[in-house]
Amino acid sequence: MSNEILTDRPEFRALQEHYKNVSPLHMRDLFAKEPARFDRFHVKNGGILLDFSKHRATEKTFELLMSLAKVCNIEDWRGKMFAGQPINNTENRAVLHVALRGSVDKNLSVDGENVSKFVDDILKKVKLFSDKIRADKKITDIVNIGIGGSGIGAYTVCKALASYNDGPTVHFVSNIDNAALDPLLKKLKLENTLFIIVSKTFTTLETLSNAEKAKTWAGSNTNFVAVTENVEQAKNFGVRPENIFPMRKWIGGRISIWGAAGLAVAIAAGFDNFQKFLNGAKEMDTHFRTAPLDKNMPVILAMLGVWYRNFFDFRAHTLNPYANDLQLLPTWLQQIDMESNGKNISRGGDTLNYSTGPTIFGGTGTDTQHAFFQSLHQGTDIIPCDFILVNDPANIPLNANALAQAKTLMKGFSSKTEPHRNHPGNRPSSTIILDKLDPFHLGQLMALYEHKIFVQGIVWNINSYDQWGVELGKILSKDITQALESKREVGDYDSSTLGLMHHLKSRAS
Amino acid sequence: MSNEILTDRPEFRALQEHYKNVSPLHMRDLFAKEPARFDRFHVKNGGILLDFSKHRATEKTFELLMSLAKVCNIEDWRGKMFAGQPINNTENRAVLHVALRGSVDKNLSVDGENVSKFVDDILKKVKLFSDKIRADKKITDIVNIGIGGSGIGAYTVCKALASYNDGPTVHFVSNIDNAALDPLLKKLKLENTLFIIVSKTFTTLETLSNAEKAKTWAGSNTNFVAVTENVEQAKNFGVRPENIFPMRKWIGGRISIWGAAGLAVAIAAGFDNFQKFLNGAKEMDTHFRTAPLDKNMPVILAMLGVWYRNFFDFRAHTLNPYANDLQLLPTWLQQIDMESNGKNISRGGDTLNYSTGPTIFGGTGTDTQHAFFQSLHQGTDIIPCDFILVNDPANIPLNANALAQAKTLMKGFSSKTEPHRNHPGNRPSSTIILDKLDPFHLGQLMALYEHKIFVQGIVWNINSYDQWGVELGKILSKDITQALESKREVGDYDSSTLGLMHHLKSRAS
Repeated sequence: MSNEILTDRPEFRALQEHYKNVSPLHMRDLFAKEPARFDRFHVKNGGILLDFSKHRATEKTFELLMSLAKVCNIEDWRGKMFAGQPINNTENRAVLHVALRGSVDKNLSVDGENVSKFVDDILKKVKLFSDKIRADKKITDIVNIGIGGSGIGAYTVCKALASYNDGPTVHFVSNIDNAALDPLLKKLKLENTLFIIVSKTFTTLETLSNAEKAKTWAGSNTNFVAVTENVEQAKNFGVRPENIFPMRKWIGGRISIWGAAGLAVAIAAGFDNFQKFLNGAKEMDTHFRTAPLDKNMPVILAMLGVWYRNFFDFRAHTLNPYANDLQLLPTWLQQIDMESNGKNISRGGDTLNYSTGPTIFGGTGTDTQHAFFQSLHQGTDIIPCDFILVNDPANIPLNANALAQAKTLMKGFSSKTEPHRNHPGNRPSSTIILDKLDPFHLGQLMALYEHKIFVQGIVWNINSYDQWGVELGKILSKDITQALESKREVGDYDSSTLGLMHHLKSRAS
Repeated sequence: MSNEILTDRPEFRALQEHYKNVSPLHMRDLFAKEPARFDRFHVKNGGILLDFSKHRATEKTFELLMSLAKVCNIEDWRGKMFAGQPINNTENRAVLHVALRGSVDKNLSVDGENVSKFVDDILKKVKLFSDKIRADKKITDIVNIGIGGSGIGAYTVCKALASYNDGPTVHFVSNIDNAALDPLLKKLKLENTLFIIVSKTFTTLETLSNAEKAKTWAGSNTNFVAVTENVEQAKNFGVRPENIFPMRKWIGGRISIWGAAGLAVAIAAGFDNFQKFLNGAKEMDTHFRTAPLDKNMPVILAMLGVWYRNFFDFRAHTLNPYANDLQLLPTWLQQIDMESNGKNISRGGDTLNYSTGPTIFGGTGTDTQHAFFQSLHQGTDIIPCDFILVNDPANIPLNANALAQAKTLMKGFSSKTEPHRNHPGNRPSSTIILDKLDPFHLGQLMALYEHKIFVQGIVWNINSYDQWGVELGKILSKDITQALESKREVGDYDSSTLGLMHHLKSRAS
């Protein structure tokens, strides 16, 4: 049963039939008919409220979606993940970022090592090191060198917790462009700067290139720290052994923020706040493991995504936090979602005949209201939207804007005399309200999206935890680099690549 | 003829037929068959190269696309825009951002005023003011307060020209969130700070709210400048008359960077560099007005967009500059493209039966290779991509990466033993190479995208220059704000809006 093709499942076909009934309905009529719609379609847990009433769905829709989730064995797979089974099958690895926040059995071992012992040790090391740096006050600036998951996670959290950052200033450098690191180095003082090099493999071109440049600038290795699985390589680079924070195969790069890759956060905001961030994620882990599917936030968001993707054929999803400090959350989600579920090959190696991960984009409200919201309201595509709010009286103008936008997307607006003012409405959104923008709720929120992505990966029968489309890119550019550097002949390329190389060389020479 | 519905035009139907022949073709076969493909499908102008050979198109495709462009009267409409006719029909306004860079007839008058005289005067004022601020060195920090087009344009240019900025540091504040302006004010010194308030109407909620806060902080109005059409309102706010830079109805907010809304750029990088930026845009204006359609960069990019949107049904477009300083360009394009063409009502007020502006997103290469490129390569949707490169020998690693990605998107990659490594290829991209990242080429590049959007708006028969989906949002939140502030009863809302308001109030009280 579990190897059946998604689109052949009776539960999928039932949804196809049901879609024909639901797609002509307008949400404003659903709301008019069901005064208790909000009561029925919202969930609260640990300081987060999720309102999923403004969706093109009826009671029956949710029943059918949950039947599909059930028959796709969401609960089994969830169990496998938390039990450390190698659900990343193409790389034969466990997926245990949840262990970093204490959500696995104390006796769990992977590759012959007790997982909780490893986690305790690494968090102790993070605490000791961050306490020390914060206490001696000599270090005023931290430079986190890492790209993709090794940068954007910590960057997102540092921005989000800006009001908690009472430690050194953290800078994030990912791009290999000289314009990224060079202007920063000009401003920094050697004796006050600590470099954190984050690379699971310690071979990532951009990170190593920036790290080498930093080393040349620093002239000494004292203030270098490495977060990596490849301890030997970090030693060879010159990082002192006590400054190396080991990773494990079972920590995926893009979900590594919960361990040593979060070192920059612990230094900036203090380990206590980092621990609260982990605790928030643990709270969401527990909710995800224990709440019934139809009250389960990650499952609800995931199955609504499936509903829109595979039945309505909506292809994008937008995320808009109405909080300036959450400005990087959309970029973070874009990375983890599109890298995890932007795949067309099944877990078993077959080419899929249905759609998977959508395009994810977003920005900070109200800025985005003055940008792409025009298209959300009046564009020809329908793009479901997540509104993220923080329940702080100081945020009233922001929150009022978010509510007004969500309401208009749902209800629409009509003008008999001026057709250009018409808003069709019937455009879905979820609203997520955090009691506070603090480490705990941030942890909850980010874990919510992680688990949403997990659930969708299971339904779509893909391995969300590899990234062969990224791996390939890492090796492809070497030939072209050498040819552009005139270290070798320009080889055998298509006329476009060749023409572009000649154009670049004609000026570079 | 010109009022005919797009999808009824014989040229559109010919493309529908032609699509059936082209869609099964793989680009790698096209390249194998036509060694001169790059020669045929690239254009150079004024220091920009556009390679459009890696598209799912044949010679015939371009012929048909250009026939469609012709019959949609692109050339007539282009003439109307440059001649100052009120092509923004729902607001009865001319669209003359091109006048700001000297691309209109010297005798052109709009609303009884000579346009070139206005432009000369305003640029002179910008020059005098920016020269003065730069010379007296007292001002070290500029705060640009403006949202949407009144912020993101200047912000994008200031970032892009970071290496030219030898004047004061410029900060951009748009969001109404206290977390946006408050931490900045803590760092600034009153006597060294100049505030530029940019708001065409001088009524924009976010901007006025931030401006009031700045005024309270400053306690005096001396260092306030306003860029606005509403001169009276700016005076009432307390800006001294000589510090008010007037706008005109014919300058759309999102394309206002070329005039006084670019004041921050002129102060940071100097007026000469600002003038070079305008000169670059003028160069692109001339190219757009004079190059034959099939050699015309904005027309080529626009018609390829139409090809993918209306025939292939691709719904997103991604933009990836391989230059750290161009990091905001995707956000800028997202704003101007989705706000201009995210519309479902025709110029004449009819609901459209075809797709218009796509979802626009992107980021800086190589960062994005470690993020959403997974999905570009192996996702189930095909998303056309613009690669933007700068021809600087220091950029070789970046450029090699871009070329390698574009090549793989086109060719694909196949593995017989490991299906998860398969990349289907046949995914289109354009490559744009700037001779240099300088003011002139930046002006060219931004004007290229402006004109692309214009052309698509004409083909889709929409008014690209209004934004009723934004206007509505500006007035909707007032009731909810008052209710959340307990200044009035919570009124008659749907159960979702009501439930969320009660939740927010339960804590806020």
